Amino acid sequence: MKPLILVTNDDGVQSPGIAALIKAVKPLGDVVVLAPDGPRSGMSSAITSHVPIRMKEERKEDGLLVYSCSGTPVDCVKLAINELLDRKPDLLVSGINHGSNAAICVLYSGTMGAALEGTIFGINAIGFSLTDQAADADFKDAAAYARIIAEKVLKTGLPSGVCLNVNIPNTTIKGIKVCTQTKGRWINEFFKSKASQEQDVYWLTGEFRNDEPNNADSDEWALANAYVSIVPTKIDLTAHGLLDEMQQKFSSLHLSSLPS
Amino acid sequence: MKPLILVTNDDGVQSPGIAALIKAVKPLGDVVVLAPDGPRSGMSSAITSHVPIRMKEERKEDGLLVYSCSGTPVDCVKLAINELLDRKPDLLVSGINHGSNAAICVLYSGTMGAALEGTIFGINAIGFSLTDQAADADFKDAAAYARIIAEKVLKTGLPSGVCLNVNIPNTTIKGIKVCTQTKGRWINEFFKSKASQEQDVYWLTGEFRNDEPNNADSDEWALANAYVSIVPTKIDLTAHGLLDEMQQKFSSLHLSSLPS
Repeated sequence: MKPLILVTNDDGVQSPGIAALIKAVKPLGDVVVLAPDGPRSGMSSAITSHVPIRMKEERKEDGLLVYSCSGTPVDCVKLAINELLDRKPDLLVSGINHGSNAAICVLYSGTMGAALEGTIFGINAIGFSLTDQAADADFKDAAAYARIIAEKVLKTGLPSGVCLNVNIPNTTIKGIKVCTQTKGRWINEFFKSKASQEQDVYWLTGEFRNDEPNNADSDEWALANAYVSIVPTKIDLTAHGLLDEMQQKFSSLHLSSLPS
Repeated sequence: MKPLILVTNDDGVQSPGIAALIKAVKPLGDVVVLAPDGPRSGMSSAITSHVPIRMKEERKEDGLLVYSCSGTPVDCVKLAINELLDRKPDLLVSGINHGSNAAICVLYSGTMGAALEGTIFGINAIGFSLTDQAADADFKDAAAYARIIAEKVLKTGLPSGVCLNVNIPNTTIKGIKVCTQTKGRWINEFFKSKASQEQDVYWLTGEFRNDEPNNADSDEWALANAYVSIVPTKIDLTAHGLLDEMQQKFSSLHLSSLPS
């Protein structure tokens, strides 16, 4: 039996990035796509709990089934595994995202939300992003790297609880570097304009401020230096190294110390 | 100058949970609230990038300003810090959520999305959740614990890059336990019904399957045993312990190994 590969993304089933990813992994197994029916950038691990989700068959070819749904990237993964597939996929690939998901963007990214969700289900999962937001971005090299990384993961697996956050620079690539999530944050995040004379509105924008630009182990450094960055990314957010310190600090608190 | 405390949530500015939290932290400082204008459960760290955000003043009292906006919990934090506040808050509290955010729910939770966002900004941040989804849930004990935990964090701070995921059981509470994020996932996640004769729709539902029910260090164990659980929760998702192993596995991959 060929490996079963689930493909999703956050830019929507019609995006060039997912077309490039489907083409990249098609030679590696049977491919099922379930992706959002439109753009869901910045959806993180959001789920749709108050309205129902609709699923639609888009097309069917030899070894390739393509579906869309009205939900988020995480909904796509949940729906595929709970309702669409008759066995657990051997691999989940998400992307190729139009734009970087390096550094703290891993937390906002729908591409990575879907990859993390695969990891929750115990599926080897990879999120791929190209550092080019343009609609006509060239995905050729990114797709080539996506294929060899996907092939390696299919062969050797990933440790439990860990997926890969793969970012691919939009340049002549020197090679692959395993990295840490760069420390930093977005700044100047809003553009303020008017919806009317009375009503201000705020458009999310901004720029990334790198707090460790010289850290050659970080993903932003790798991308700036023409390497594909791979950050092994955990679904367990616990700060394990702080448990004893925190236990001492908080477990002695009792309600009797409540200010009256 | 009194401490500045930013309050937000994901159930919306009108929810009883945020009213209880405002009351709990009001004696500790000057309070500014910026919360979603309606329910945003399950929004994780989602951001609003394709439509503008509207902000509205809800009310003003001595030492308390309340605003709402049309965005997600993370948008609320970003908007408060970028546009609303004239100084960095000393503390961000999010909640009190109507329902548990223990275990893997930390990833889906808008309450915790807001707390993680505070941490990105270098603000001491805490997400509070009560294990009772009912609209008329009793937040009295939860609010009392929220106050003593918030007070402790204001006094002693939190390590860089770490916020607290605090869950409060809906029972007679024995004390506080610092915990790990329980391993497990949701199962049976959809209820399928019909929107018409032709169209199936899927409603997200399900139940949590605990993969380590006997782990007395886990947050689900603490809650089941009548303890308030505190999980120190990181914004750095890097699996640091795996970097060397992953480097060996992936950095030797080159495009020459691409199948033709």
